[in-house]
Amino acid sequence: MNQIQALKDILSDDTLENVLILPHNMPDGDTLGSCIGLYFLVKHFNKRGYIVLNDGIPSNLSFLFDDEVRCLTSKEVEHLDFDVSIAVDSGETKLFEDRLSLFKRGKTRVNIDHHKTNSFFADINIIEVEASSTGEIVAQLFEAYDCPLCKRSAEGLYAAIVTDTGSFKYSNTRPLTFEISKKLMEMGFDFNRLNVEIFQNKSYEKLLLLNRVFETLKLYVDGKCAVIKLSKELIEQLALTEYDTDGIVEFVRDIKGVEVVIFIRHLNGEAHKVSMRSKYDFDVSEVATAFKGGGHMKAAGFKIDEKIEEIEAKIVEAIESKFGL
Amino acid sequence: MNQIQALKDILSDDTLENVLILPHNMPDGDTLGSCIGLYFLVKHFNKRGYIVLNDGIPSNLSFLFDDEVRCLTSKEVEHLDFDVSIAVDSGETKLFEDRLSLFKRGKTRVNIDHHKTNSFFADINIIEVEASSTGEIVAQLFEAYDCPLCKRSAEGLYAAIVTDTGSFKYSNTRPLTFEISKKLMEMGFDFNRLNVEIFQNKSYEKLLLLNRVFETLKLYVDGKCAVIKLSKELIEQLALTEYDTDGIVEFVRDIKGVEVVIFIRHLNGEAHKVSMRSKYDFDVSEVATAFKGGGHMKAAGFKIDEKIEEIEAKIVEAIESKFGL
Repeated sequence: MNQIQALKDILSDDTLENVLILPHNMPDGDTLGSCIGLYFLVKHFNKRGYIVLNDGIPSNLSFLFDDEVRCLTSKEVEHLDFDVSIAVDSGETKLFEDRLSLFKRGKTRVNIDHHKTNSFFADINIIEVEASSTGEIVAQLFEAYDCPLCKRSAEGLYAAIVTDTGSFKYSNTRPLTFEISKKLMEMGFDFNRLNVEIFQNKSYEKLLLLNRVFETLKLYVDGKCAVIKLSKELIEQLALTEYDTDGIVEFVRDIKGVEVVIFIRHLNGEAHKVSMRSKYDFDVSEVATAFKGGGHMKAAGFKIDEKIEEIEAKIVEAIESKFGL
Repeated sequence: MNQIQALKDILSDDTLENVLILPHNMPDGDTLGSCIGLYFLVKHFNKRGYIVLNDGIPSNLSFLFDDEVRCLTSKEVEHLDFDVSIAVDSGETKLFEDRLSLFKRGKTRVNIDHHKTNSFFADINIIEVEASSTGEIVAQLFEAYDCPLCKRSAEGLYAAIVTDTGSFKYSNTRPLTFEISKKLMEMGFDFNRLNVEIFQNKSYEKLLLLNRVFETLKLYVDGKCAVIKLSKELIEQLALTEYDTDGIVEFVRDIKGVEVVIFIRHLNGEAHKVSMRSKYDFDVSEVATAFKGGGHMKAAGFKIDEKIEEIEAKIVEAIESKFGL
């Protein structure tokens, strides 16, 4: 049965009431913005949506929420029964592991996502791999269900699209992305505010961090491979949280000539997280797989328990060999 | 008479042959991309377009040109007669002063632009202040004239739009910008390459410069005003050209809490160039006017012959007073 029709049938059932909406852990603009869209979509069907998240919201996305549309914690909804639960932008259930039992309490479980690795873990799976973002899929649901957009839903969905496409710069952008963005913008949300909040809101501390990380930059393979490192000492010195390093690996990727960038970040003990990004056709997921990690062609990573210098040497060797050296 | 029809009539005149197409000095993506669009537009009318520029092309835009579509120098076209000359993205003729006599040699002179300060200096003036970019205007001419786009013209016009809107982040973006961008993207130019070339191509030297300029950053007015400086010494030490500093003032504007940023750059002797950018409603053009400069509400500047520290003190005073301090 058509999955989009199946969800419509469920939402149209007048006996149903509460809908659980789950963003993934370490939420980004796509998962949060899509949840906001879904909140208004289910409201249109006279359902009450509950967006539930135990992680914090990145500061540049907090403007999306207010007293009307809030994120609740698991604890705040534990007394409720859910007729429908919707996982949003999650390829697999481990991306909301802390709320998995909550998700399972939904009588019908729904999975809306655009990751090609999605494991179809729900009763209704609306997966569109070609979509730039889950927000783009949700925007299409509004159209398919003849559900009018409002300023808030349009703002959420636009935020979802614009963050996942790097403001229409990444190759997941397609003509339909522009068509949908036009319709969303026409709803008249504060376009300037959204872009300032999301993109023009780097903390001074983050720029300072960028400066210090830049000092660790080493170029390999004739400048095609860049390595940056964030040591335990620097993390402590700058009192960094996980989110503070967002965007740094992309910043280095954008150096002219660099085709692949490796970011090695201290986690705890000897554990380090390695993030890789590429620009053109270099498949970083292959390198990540060799180190028991995973990801996409242009964005992948893994965790490893070794000294930072040893990790650097090993990865550079793997990269060089992929470059045929 | 309708200016768009007037240009069509001229272009449809079979007795005409050569069209001069003039980008403005220190060319940006909008002027160059729009010129490429116009090159193909006039070709559709069986005219030969000559894009003439004596300045260099910024390295991140050079991919737009090749053997088919080239920029010629004034010298290379001095033997030619021009039936039509078109100034592109220039609010006034001093923006192509070095080629003004060439422009005047055109029997019919055309001015296509989106700056609200445009002085309507030509015979035919196609000025659309609401357009995000001149590229957006030229794209509309293709439609008005029933002229089919090709990959190259679409690529040029998309480059024009995407650079002038900061990849759809600036408030000059409108719903029509997305509609046009969709049509351009559908022509199938290499979307990933365009975005990599334009946006993911920062030179290592530029990042180094950013690092050094960041060290000069001072915050005023509770962090609402940021000042960065580029001294003669640093310019010489890093062997910088004018283009190398592109984007630096925007980078600092994007610090959280900063509403206005001032960039003071040494020119020669005691001459300095001051560039100002704002984020929300702070009108920097008012400050620039007080120093005999000009510009837009969110981007303005002026030149001044004083010592760098004295300039800083004076501007900070002007900014503070505008903040009511």
